[in-house]
Amino acid sequence: MARIVVIYKTPKDPAAFDKHYFEVHVPLAKKLPGLRKYEVSRGPILTPAGGSGFYMVASLHFDSLAAIEQAFATPEGRACGADRRVFAPNDEDLIMLLFEDREV
Amino acid sequence: MARIVVIYKTPKDPAAFDKHYFEVHVPLAKKLPGLRKYEVSRGPILTPAGGSGFYMVASLHFDSLAAIEQAFATPEGRACGADRRVFAPNDEDLIMLLFEDREV
Repeated sequence: MARIVVIYKTPKDPAAFDKHYFEVHVPLAKKLPGLRKYEVSRGPILTPAGGSGFYMVASLHFDSLAAIEQAFATPEGRACGADRRVFAPNDEDLIMLLFEDREV
Repeated sequence: MARIVVIYKTPKDPAAFDKHYFEVHVPLAKKLPGLRKYEVSRGPILTPAGGSGFYMVASLHFDSLAAIEQAFATPEGRACGADRRVFAPNDEDLIMLLFEDREV
């Protein structure tokens, strides 16, 4: 399996972020070809010491890194990437990591 | 469900890191009470632009944040935390995030 993990920093307007994320972005991302599972954090993102400065973590699961690459080359993938720029415009607004993983 | 996501920065000695992680840390962490699933990345941690500077991502799944807190209050949890200081001694060596999530 492979996944995209997107860690969003706390936005200026969390209510507007949530509204756009759940009403617009989730429906778009769920159309990504090859998407196997899509999980989104609810509530605070903590560290062992307390607050993290992060607001939300999304995990999108695919069969492989190649499947992720293929998904984002489709019209659905491009729409998803463009929409992300609406609610998290700057590269500094998030950490996006792509990797293969497996259960140990 | 809730999870701990640990994102390790690239260590000075990746071979030594891997050896300790898989031979010592994984067996310790698998003893954490309440652990439901434990996934570890294999291969590079990428960003859409290429390399990330991160080396490994581990995801440990539990029923709730309370279950995570309880797990780390046990002797197994304390052993796990102490062992992490062996192969990733500094707080700057990793990002550790705890959160509840659900499928969308």
